[in-house]
Amino acid sequence: MTESSAPQHEAPAKTIAFVQYPGLSPLDIAGPLQVFGVLSLLLPGYDTVVVGERIEPMVTDTPLSLIPSHTFETMPDPYALIVPGGTVPTVAAMADEKLLDKLRTAAARSEIVGSVCTGSLLLAAAGLLEGRRANTHWLYRSLLAKFGAIPVAERWVRDGNVITAAGVSAGIDMALHLVGELAGQDIARKVQLFVEYDPKPPFGPIDWEAADPGQYAPLLQKRLHHALADHPALLERLTD
Amino acid sequence: MTESSAPQHEAPAKTIAFVQYPGLSPLDIAGPLQVFGVLSLLLPGYDTVVVGERIEPMVTDTPLSLIPSHTFETMPDPYALIVPGGTVPTVAAMADEKLLDKLRTAAARSEIVGSVCTGSLLLAAAGLLEGRRANTHWLYRSLLAKFGAIPVAERWVRDGNVITAAGVSAGIDMALHLVGELAGQDIARKVQLFVEYDPKPPFGPIDWEAADPGQYAPLLQKRLHHALADHPALLERLTD
Repeated sequence: MTESSAPQHEAPAKTIAFVQYPGLSPLDIAGPLQVFGVLSLLLPGYDTVVVGERIEPMVTDTPLSLIPSHTFETMPDPYALIVPGGTVPTVAAMADEKLLDKLRTAAARSEIVGSVCTGSLLLAAAGLLEGRRANTHWLYRSLLAKFGAIPVAERWVRDGNVITAAGVSAGIDMALHLVGELAGQDIARKVQLFVEYDPKPPFGPIDWEAADPGQYAPLLQKRLHHALADHPALLERLTD
Repeated sequence: MTESSAPQHEAPAKTIAFVQYPGLSPLDIAGPLQVFGVLSLLLPGYDTVVVGERIEPMVTDTPLSLIPSHTFETMPDPYALIVPGGTVPTVAAMADEKLLDKLRTAAARSEIVGSVCTGSLLLAAAGLLEGRRANTHWLYRSLLAKFGAIPVAERWVRDGNVITAAGVSAGIDMALHLVGELAGQDIARKVQLFVEYDPKPPFGPIDWEAADPGQYAPLLQKRLHHALADHPALLERLTD
């Protein structure tokens, strides 16, 4: 096995671009970023970038701050553009027209547009999910329909050139699937081996019936009102 | 469900401290950090910090740079100290006596000492795994014995107050286990629900027989020589 990110052929590298914005959940970005990072080590011709409005520290929903590697203007045209999610700050970003404009422009430069968790709400707010089957974090799934998307409760869902994952950790599964599409199952299995993704959740799989999303409706309302207090029109669209 | 990180009782918060150093793998730190971050949202009395030698941007093995929230000197005494891993930079950090000293001092202030992936090699180099059952990333597992640890191929292994996880993504499973220990299974299941850890690896579980670690021995040697070219004594200890 070689370990090099230098392409051994003439074609430019396929770039997987991850969007960073203030307040996102680090696992949403780090999961698929690590998966594609290993791909770029195992196989020439792939590259990753993290793209933000500015190359400067941004807070997350943890004590960690992150710094992107590129701006939207300096990133190469991506093969895939992937938007991570988060909680209140991500909902607030649905009202950030400047960011949504950057997403639309970047999406138009990308062959595939993807998201992890509530990142799909940003794609939806940017008008990129109309008529598409899509998923997001389970707590927010019903909101997708407000933007013309068709909510689907799958670990990840592909509709044309749009692929959207379920919440947070689902980005790892989606990224491995994309590696399989791009580089074949043998390489994808090798990437899985190197990130040792052999999950053993200590309490087993999620019991979705016991989880009963209905009980969390007040939490969703609270988060929406907190995030969009200054954007009554969008708040009304999401809560009516 | 409440959503507050402010303790509702007099006891100081239990702090989970994650160690950051240059070159680590973001998923190693972001996985368990996100798990404990959700715990701190769901239940008062828990807190997370990211601790580095200095509060300044550090590179990772991806295009993302990270900034810790505390130094070793400014962090509160942690309930758990968790050391993430990585590849060549983590092996190189095994020769960083200043960092190892900080780890020893911080570990002595912690009730539990943990690691993800090759983070356990730093614990081993700091002398904290002597006589302990421990794990690390599969590629590096044989190295643990060079420091008196007993290598164990489990998703995570607890020996006394030391808990060590397998590679990269295994930190998520270990963190959920620790949440269960700390706050009970009901809360741990709720945390699992919120990070939607309901894994569906697209190509199934890892086939360890097909993986055959022996074929990667040259890769391990290459990484060790790359990391420790300036530290011949440690290199010899690891490669003899």
